[in-house]
Amino acid sequence: MAISSEIIIGNNLFDQIKSKKGVVVMDAALIELYGDKIDADLIAIPNKKTLKTLHFLLKALFEKKADKETTLIAVGGGNITDLAAFAASIYMRGIDLILVPTSLLAMVDAAIGGKTAIDTPLGKNLIGSLYHPKAIFIDLDTLKTLPEKEWINGLAEIWKMGLVYDASILQKKRDNPELIRHAINAKLAVMEQDPIDASIRRILNFGHTFGHVIEILGGVDHGQAVAFGCLMEAHLSMALGYLAKDEFKQIETIFPRPDLKNYDKCKFLEIICRDKKSKNGIPRFVLIDQIGHAIPFDAAYCREVSIGELEPTLKFYGL
Amino acid sequence: MAISSEIIIGNNLFDQIKSKKGVVVMDAALIELYGDKIDADLIAIPNKKTLKTLHFLLKALFEKKADKETTLIAVGGGNITDLAAFAASIYMRGIDLILVPTSLLAMVDAAIGGKTAIDTPLGKNLIGSLYHPKAIFIDLDTLKTLPEKEWINGLAEIWKMGLVYDASILQKKRDNPELIRHAINAKLAVMEQDPIDASIRRILNFGHTFGHVIEILGGVDHGQAVAFGCLMEAHLSMALGYLAKDEFKQIETIFPRPDLKNYDKCKFLEIICRDKKSKNGIPRFVLIDQIGHAIPFDAAYCREVSIGELEPTLKFYGL
Repeated sequence: MAISSEIIIGNNLFDQIKSKKGVVVMDAALIELYGDKIDADLIAIPNKKTLKTLHFLLKALFEKKADKETTLIAVGGGNITDLAAFAASIYMRGIDLILVPTSLLAMVDAAIGGKTAIDTPLGKNLIGSLYHPKAIFIDLDTLKTLPEKEWINGLAEIWKMGLVYDASILQKKRDNPELIRHAINAKLAVMEQDPIDASIRRILNFGHTFGHVIEILGGVDHGQAVAFGCLMEAHLSMALGYLAKDEFKQIETIFPRPDLKNYDKCKFLEIICRDKKSKNGIPRFVLIDQIGHAIPFDAAYCREVSIGELEPTLKFYGL
Repeated sequence: MAISSEIIIGNNLFDQIKSKKGVVVMDAALIELYGDKIDADLIAIPNKKTLKTLHFLLKALFEKKADKETTLIAVGGGNITDLAAFAASIYMRGIDLILVPTSLLAMVDAAIGGKTAIDTPLGKNLIGSLYHPKAIFIDLDTLKTLPEKEWINGLAEIWKMGLVYDASILQKKRDNPELIRHAINAKLAVMEQDPIDASIRRILNFGHTFGHVIEILGGVDHGQAVAFGCLMEAHLSMALGYLAKDEFKQIETIFPRPDLKNYDKCKFLEIICRDKKSKNGIPRFVLIDQIGHAIPFDAAYCREVSIGELEPTLKFYGL
């Protein structure tokens, strides 16, 4: 699949966005900030990517008489860009899409790479598609109003790229605008090496196997959960003998430490076994052998890990 | 988008299908005929491509622990192949798919070309995707038990290809097995000329603009409605001065004549204006200038038709 999205990074981009014809879907909470910057038909939705908001958005597109020639422009965080991209991919078998991510997490991760998804009672991101936007506008001005919690969510994905691909990312300060460009380029470089998502692209999933469980069972924000997951999967890499102890100690100084003592262990393991990387119900993990390098494992970039092998790491974090 | 499906046409193919690993989804009405020919996990669903059956199928896949490595094998008519293909395209962002169409209509049309869709309260085929199966098995033995009504449904799409692309198709007898191969090859040839569905591929839509309305408002079977639609769009081609009267007279001897006197005209026009080919609410029709040739219209292969221009044809058929 071609990765053909144009990515525009800069300040004060809403004038350019305004010139695009289409229907705009926006996080309702952002209407106050950006509503008057939009000329087009505007659909406000809650910041959720559920079946309910999907139905609402598809119905609104239909009622606004959106057709094959319509461009859907999505303004918001990762929930909005994921949901809108999925809706664009299935409305009339696919309409044009422009993403305007307004959170750090969406800028460096959710909006980059063409993965779309919604959450259903069956699982997070279980339903989705691969669909590339025509353009991605990253307006750095939108970060000025970003809450501190959202910074942490975005930094978790950025630091993850530091652990699995490029250690230098971990040296960049968060107020350096090059950090965003650097993180996006790292993700795109990985994706271009593996456009069909069957090999090195799996390293983007580091921290997400444990992370997803913590997100689901703990009701923890995605980025925060990924930060916890990164530390746990670094610990797993050490426990399985791949990562040196001093490297793990260094990672411990960057990532927050989860406390799993109140989690239900059965549910925890059940969700892990249903992870998308799982094969025949056996979980597979991305592992690292040093900061900045994921282990290739014959180009699979993940390794089966038995429940027994998970035990030391689960125990270390209180489960 | 690559059109990479392998198409196997022959007799007694279920032994080959049996050797494929995967989860089988089958029209519940076919379980008696083909249930014992299947070894794999079997999901029986009603012959409907609705949101409800979509949810049912996705949930069943989840419960059978289907993962990225699972192949979904769909056995049934066009509803089942359309629904299963859409489900395969959005389950975990896409899993492998094999189609085993068992109706003439699905063999020559629904299963060929990668269009997937479901019907929602918003409209027929409004929600869907483009997704190609790995393989399509066309077992001619399944036609032995096909009801007469289903033959008509399939022949309507085959004859449509005769009107827009290859007049020789209209000379082939229905019991000639080459008719199926010929119709599939014609559709694939058109698709290959226009993989992104923006030009000549629109001719496959001949008969479907009126046809869809008749299907929705009249509760008429898809193929039967397309047969009615083909005749009406041939009439429209004549009324607009493109098609000679004697050619239309010839078409009249092949296709059944609809009677629209009990239809609601407002609803009829409203649905036409919402057709997928419509641009800014103005309907666009594929038109022919002789049997076997759709008019290119600067490679758009469709032309805007005003409500006023539709009147003579609507009136001719009783609306």
